[in-house]
Amino acid sequence: MEEKISVNKEALRLVKNLCSQPWKYGVRISKTNSGATLIDAGVKIPGSYIAGKIITEICMGGLGEVSLSYMCIKNIYLPAVSTYTNYPVISALGSQLAGWYIETDNYVAIGSGPARALALKPQSIYKKIGYADESNEAVIVLETSRSPPEGVVSLISKECGVSPRNLFIIVVPTSSVAGFVQIAGRTAETGIYRLMELGFDPGMIKDAWGCAPVLPPHPDYAESMGRSNDAILYGGSAFYNVVCEDDEVLEEITPKAVSSSSKDYGRLFSQIFKEAGMNFYRVDPKIFAPAQIVINNLRTGKVFISGEVNQKMLIRSIMSRDSTS
Amino acid sequence: MEEKISVNKEALRLVKNLCSQPWKYGVRISKTNSGATLIDAGVKIPGSYIAGKIITEICMGGLGEVSLSYMCIKNIYLPAVSTYTNYPVISALGSQLAGWYIETDNYVAIGSGPARALALKPQSIYKKIGYADESNEAVIVLETSRSPPEGVVSLISKECGVSPRNLFIIVVPTSSVAGFVQIAGRTAETGIYRLMELGFDPGMIKDAWGCAPVLPPHPDYAESMGRSNDAILYGGSAFYNVVCEDDEVLEEITPKAVSSSSKDYGRLFSQIFKEAGMNFYRVDPKIFAPAQIVINNLRTGKVFISGEVNQKMLIRSIMSRDSTS
Amino acid sequence: MEEKISVNKEALRLVKNLCSQPWKYGVRISKTNSGATLIDAGVKIPGSYIAGKIITEICMGGLGEVSLSYMCIKNIYLPAVSTYTNYPVISALGSQLAGWYIETDNYVAIGSGPARALALKPQSIYKKIGYADESNEAVIVLETSRSPPEGVVSLISKECGVSPRNLFIIVVPTSSVAGFVQIAGRTAETGIYRLMELGFDPGMIKDAWGCAPVLPPHPDYAESMGRSNDAILYGGSAFYNVVCEDDEVLEEITPKAVSSSSKDYGRLFSQIFKEAGMNFYRVDPKIFAPAQIVINNLRTGKVFISGEVNQKMLIRSIMSRDSTS
Repeated sequence: MEEKISVNKEALRLVKNLCSQPWKYGVRISKTNSGATLIDAGVKIPGSYIAGKIITEICMGGLGEVSLSYMCIKNIYLPAVSTYTNYPVISALGSQLAGWYIETDNYVAIGSGPARALALKPQSIYKKIGYADESNEAVIVLETSRSPPEGVVSLISKECGVSPRNLFIIVVPTSSVAGFVQIAGRTAETGIYRLMELGFDPGMIKDAWGCAPVLPPHPDYAESMGRSNDAILYGGSAFYNVVCEDDEVLEEITPKAVSSSSKDYGRLFSQIFKEAGMNFYRVDPKIFAPAQIVINNLRTGKVFISGEVNQKMLIRSIMSRDSTS
Repeated sequence: MEEKISVNKEALRLVKNLCSQPWKYGVRISKTNSGATLIDAGVKIPGSYIAGKIITEICMGGLGEVSLSYMCIKNIYLPAVSTYTNYPVISALGSQLAGWYIETDNYVAIGSGPARALALKPQSIYKKIGYADESNEAVIVLETSRSPPEGVVSLISKECGVSPRNLFIIVVPTSSVAGFVQIAGRTAETGIYRLMELGFDPGMIKDAWGCAPVLPPHPDYAESMGRSNDAILYGGSAFYNVVCEDDEVLEEITPKAVSSSSKDYGRLFSQIFKEAGMNFYRVDPKIFAPAQIVINNLRTGKVFISGEVNQKMLIRSIMSRDSTS
Repeated sequence: MEEKISVNKEALRLVKNLCSQPWKYGVRISKTNSGATLIDAGVKIPGSYIAGKIITEICMGGLGEVSLSYMCIKNIYLPAVSTYTNYPVISALGSQLAGWYIETDNYVAIGSGPARALALKPQSIYKKIGYADESNEAVIVLETSRSPPEGVVSLISKECGVSPRNLFIIVVPTSSVAGFVQIAGRTAETGIYRLMELGFDPGMIKDAWGCAPVLPPHPDYAESMGRSNDAILYGGSAFYNVVCEDDEVLEEITPKAVSSSSKDYGRLFSQIFKEAGMNFYRVDPKIFAPAQIVINNLRTGKVFISGEVNQKMLIRSIMSRDSTS
C-alpha cells in the first residue's frame, strides 16, 4: 500500500485549506506569470503560528500530525510545537528534509516538502528509501526571504515534471513566525537523518515523535538561523519506536545522534553559523540534531536515552541579540 | 482586508456548531419570546469544559485557536487552556474583552464577545482600534448567573442594530465549568488591555498567545470570581510578538503589565474582591493581568520577560474556601 | 435527554473515519465470513499513536475528547494522552471499562467499548448506572493478540443482538502502539471505577479528565501489561468535578481511590502481575487506579488531592526488561 501514497496529493489538501482562508492564516495567495500558485507566508505579510503549523504538516507530506502547545523553559512559558508520524521514512526523509538547495544567479532558497519526491532531490536519499512520488501536482516549501523569480518557478516545475499551473510554492522566511514553527517542527526529522547518516536503516523506524519550543523570531538572518536551530539542538526532543534485531547497535548509535555529540555543542548556533562564514556546508552536520533522543526497540522493549533539553542554552539564545548590536 | 473581517459572522459558525449537538456540550438551546436564541451553558444545565473552549473561541470572534491541555502546579495536574490569535487587536480588544456592562433594574451581566463590535461598547476602544463590525447577526456572551429577561434581550438587539431573531446570547455563570474555562482563556487578552492602558499602541501586537490553568470551579460567587481570576493573575502566561521601534519602551512597560505590578499582588483575588465591596470598579485594575508576560520585538529580536507563575498562590487559591465557611 | 444517547451510534462515526483511510492510521480492514468488519490495529500491521487516540475515543463511546501531547518525566520527554468527558458515567462505566471478559476454548480477549452497553456486560454495572444502549450496530474493542475466530464473532453479535454485518470489531494487542495509547487513556476511567467500588455514587461525577504518559511499548506480554499499566498507576492523573452533599465522604474516599492505597504499590506492575500467576483476578484491584486524583466538589468548592505521579517508578518501568532476559 505504501508505494501508492502520494505526498504531493496528501499535502495538496492542506494547501487548499491554507488557500481557502488566506486572511485567517495571515498568508497571501498570488499567481505567477506561468500560472503557478505562490503562497507568501512571511515575506510581505506577517504569516502566523497556525500557518506555520499547516506548513509543517505540508512539509511532512500530509503524513503527520502537528500541534501547537506550550513548553516551560526555566519558568518561562513559550509556544511549542509537537509532531508525530507513523510514516517516518516517507514523511521525514522523502518530504520534510530540507534536501533541495535551489541556487541561480540571483536567487537562493532551501527547498523542502513533497515536490522533492518528484524531482528526487537528492537522488541518493530516494534510492536509499525506495520511494518516489507520482503526481501531476507538486507542492514545495521554500525557506527564503524572497519570492522566487519566474526562472526559478520554471526550474522547479520542470524538475518535478509538472505544469507550472499545477505547482504550489510556499515561501516562508527563516526569520518569520511561520518559519520558526516549521523549523522547530523538524526535530524528529533531524534525528532520523542523523541516525541514517550514522548507518542506521531508517526503514527500521516505525513511529517518530518530536517536540520543541518555538523560540521568539528574530529579524536578523544569522540570528534567526541561530534561534530557530537552537530550538532543535538545545530544546528539541525526539522519540522513536524502532524494530531492530540488535540492541547493541542502538546502544552505540543513540548518543551519536544527539546534538551534544557535536564538537560545536555548547555554543549558540548563530555563533557557530557565523564562524562557518554563514555557510551551512562548513557547519559540523552533527549539530543538526535533537537535544534529546529516546529510542524504544519494539523487538526487545529496551529503551535508549541520550542527551537532554538544555534550558541554560535556550535562555541564552532568547536573550542574545549579538548581530543586531 | 482586515476591515472586512466580521467577528460576528466568524463566531456564528462556532455558535451553530454548539447548537448542533447541545447535549454533547452540556448546553441547552431555547428561544426567547422575541425570537432570540438563548444558549444556557451553566445556569440550569452543567455545561462542560468543551463548551467552555468553544465559548472562548466565540469570545475571540472566531479569530483564535483554543485548546485544552494540562498544567502541572506543584506536582498537581490540572486542566489548562491555551489561546492563540494573529488578530490580537480585533480578537482581544474588539471582541473578547469584557467591556459591555449590562445593568437594568433587575438584571446584571458582564457582556463580551462579537456583539460589542456592533454596539461599540465601549466606544473609546473602537475609536482607538479603528474597527467596527457590520453584520445583521450578533453573538454575545453574558457572564451572569441568570438568563436575561426579555427587556435585556431587546436592549442588546437594539444596541447591536439587529433583529432579536438574529441575536444569539450565550449565558455562562462565573461559577460554572465553562465559565472557568472562558475566564482562564482571557490571559492574553488581559495583558493586551494592560499594555494599551499603559500607553502602548495595541496595533503593534502581531501575535498573542496565552495559557493558564483551569482551577476547580467554586459555587460561591465571590470565591468563583476569586479562583477564576487567580488562574490568570497567578497562573497565566502571555507571549506577544510586537513590532516596536523602541526597545526601551518595551523594557519599561513589560514589568508594569504583569499582575505583580499591582499593590494587591500576593493576596487571593476573592479577598481583594471582597475588600473592594465586591465592586469591580474599586479593584486596582493593575491586578487584572497575566502572572507572566514575554514580549518579543520582531524589529530587533530582543525579548522582554516579566513576572512568573506563582505556584504557591495557585495552591492557596485551590485550597481556600473562605466564603463558604 | 441522556437516555437517548447511543454510545454505539456515536462511536460508529469514529469507526467510519478509521475505516476511511486505514493506511493513514496503520490499520487493516477486513470482513469475517459472517460479514462483520474487523479492524486490525496492531496484530499483523503496526497501528499508530493516532489509531490509538481514535480507538480511545471509540472506547469512550464517542462521548469524550482525546488528545496526544507530551509529558516530561525526570527530564525525559515522552508522548502522553489526555482524555475528557462530561458524560463520565455512560462514557467510562457504560462503555470504556474493560468489563467484558471473552473466553472460549481457544480464544481469550478483554472486551471494552460501546458493545458492552448492548450486551450489558457486566449487568451489575448497567443496573447501577441505569443505562443501556439501543442500536442495531455494535462496536467492540478487543484487547488481545489475535483476531477473533468466527465463533467469537458470532458470540459477540448474538450477545449484542445485532447482525454480524452490523458488528465492528477492533483488535488491539496490549503490546501494540495503539494498545499503549488506549490503556494510558483509561486513567480517568480507572479512578471512576475505584470510586464506585468504594461506595461512591458515580452519578455524582460530572466531569472526568485524565492524563498519562504513553510509555514505550514492549513486545513481551507480561512486560507490556506491566508498562502500560505502570503508566496509569505511577503516571496517571485524574481530575473530577463532583456534586456531593458531604465533604467528609470525599475527604475519606479520595486517598483510597489512588494506586498508593494498594499494598502492591511501589513495585512494577509486571512483577505484581507475574506474582499473581499472570491472572488478573488475583491482582489486588486497588492497584488499578490513577497515581493522583484531584476531586473538586462543585457544591462546596472544596478540593481533595491524593497521590502523586511517581517519576522514579516510571523510569524504572521504562528501563526494566526483566522478562525478556
